Amino acid sequence: MKMFNKVVIFGTGLIGGSLGFALKRKGLAGQVIGLSRHRSNAELARRMGAIDRVGSSLGAAQDADLVVLAAPVETIINIAPDLAQRLKKGCLVIDVASTKEKIVTRLNRLIPDFVGCHPLAGSEKKGISNSQLNIFTGSICIITPAPNTSESALKKAKSLWKKLGARILLMPAARHDRILGFTSHLPHAAAFSLIASIPDKFLRISSGGLADTTRIAASDKLLWSQIFLSNRKNLLSSISAFQTKLAEFKLALANNDRKRLLKILAAAGKKRGHLK
Amino acid sequence: MKMFNKVVIFGTGLIGGSLGFALKRKGLAGQVIGLSRHRSNAELARRMGAIDRVGSSLGAAQDADLVVLAAPVETIINIAPDLAQRLKKGCLVIDVASTKEKIVTRLNRLIPDFVGCHPLAGSEKKGISNSQLNIFTGSICIITPAPNTSESALKKAKSLWKKLGARILLMPAARHDRILGFTSHLPHAAAFSLIASIPDKFLRISSGGLADTTRIAASDKLLWSQIFLSNRKNLLSSISAFQTKLAEFKLALANNDRKRLLKILAAAGKKRGHLK
Repeated sequence: MKMFNKVVIFGTGLIGGSLGFALKRKGLAGQVIGLSRHRSNAELARRMGAIDRVGSSLGAAQDADLVVLAAPVETIINIAPDLAQRLKKGCLVIDVASTKEKIVTRLNRLIPDFVGCHPLAGSEKKGISNSQLNIFTGSICIITPAPNTSESALKKAKSLWKKLGARILLMPAARHDRILGFTSHLPHAAAFSLIASIPDKFLRISSGGLADTTRIAASDKLLWSQIFLSNRKNLLSSISAFQTKLAEFKLALANNDRKRLLKILAAAGKKRGHLK
Repeated sequence: MKMFNKVVIFGTGLIGGSLGFALKRKGLAGQVIGLSRHRSNAELARRMGAIDRVGSSLGAAQDADLVVLAAPVETIINIAPDLAQRLKKGCLVIDVASTKEKIVTRLNRLIPDFVGCHPLAGSEKKGISNSQLNIFTGSICIITPAPNTSESALKKAKSLWKKLGARILLMPAARHDRILGFTSHLPHAAAFSLIASIPDKFLRISSGGLADTTRIAASDKLLWSQIFLSNRKNLLSSISAFQTKLAEFKLALANNDRKRLLKILAAAGKKRGHLK
């Protein structure tokens, strides 16, 4: 017997599409139905084999055993009340959005079997055409249960991500948003601002450093404007922290303070060594 | 007949070592002698085949036809007077440093056949063990002639980089430093400051975005402190430009100004599209 007989994925982009692939490949789903704001995206996902069938409306969720919300933050919040009325009892609902507090607060009230999830497997490349079979293997998935999250739904969600090969971290949504405000939303804000500051005519005279530091400035603007706005307070404080460090660097440089500069570079290099 | 009978490379790191490989592989050099502050680095370069022989002192340049200065900016400036006295007439001297005005001003006065060069082929990975055979193929090499640069030396330097597969851009050293202050030194300053602003305990909860934007914070600290200090004025003004853009982003976010935020992200994404 499959873990889920019928799966419905709202949003067949990079994460939603990759999840469809993974569920089918691991034999976890009887059938996978995909929906997208742009029907052509869902059609493409079907042709590529990420989903079995294209759904046409929220009604597709009617007798689903698993519903995956892989749309932008605000879309998820907007469709939730309607979706809640259509679910059969015991249907597990997860999202995969990059900010969690707003979604978890709203959806846990409406859907007892909702579990907020954030697989750290995104990319600046959007769309099903960039989805991959093994995107979740070895990645971290953060799960953000609320006090009223059903125990059985949480258990099922944990089991699902484990089967997809992810390492699970459990934490409250507020803590997730504070951490990711630093480790994901801030780098994006920095990348968008950095590329904006380079004069157009200088762009072609650059090498790997500029390409690396601004790669994520190619990320989807609708998706990211919603991520930024939904984590506004945390992101404002992480930007302030970055501004402080940038000002310290600038001051050391302005003062020709070689000793201080070397100290800053040494500490940064050591810290960067902790990342892969 | 080889283009250069005897080549001496000062600094057998990533760029110096790769240049040794390329010169030997393309049959442009009779013999390649390498020197390094740390003799073990030069020995490793020899074992790997990037150079033929390890030199022990500046005296190695005595009867060289090509001298490559692939050391940090200040080392190059410091050894120049001594080096100038040892060169035979007509020996081409090039450097490969990331800032040009200070080096070109000093060296063109001392060495008539000096040509300032900057192959845009660096990386956060340092050392001969990361050098590659084809690092220059298809890359840009900026050449920064001064008014008193000898015509024959300039011609030879252009021919050399063309044979190594690089596309050549000619510009004054001051313009080079202004452009690279934006497209290379600023991204490095941003990366060092960005990683510094992330709380240690949050580091492991991140994905590709943080890794990409801070990759170059692993760059060599001695090398980069000298690059920053030797291009201080330009870098201070590019950091200011970045601070302005970051403040604009922050203001739009603080004001919950969705329209402005979307405009910023759209413009950034479009600009990023011009890079590879």
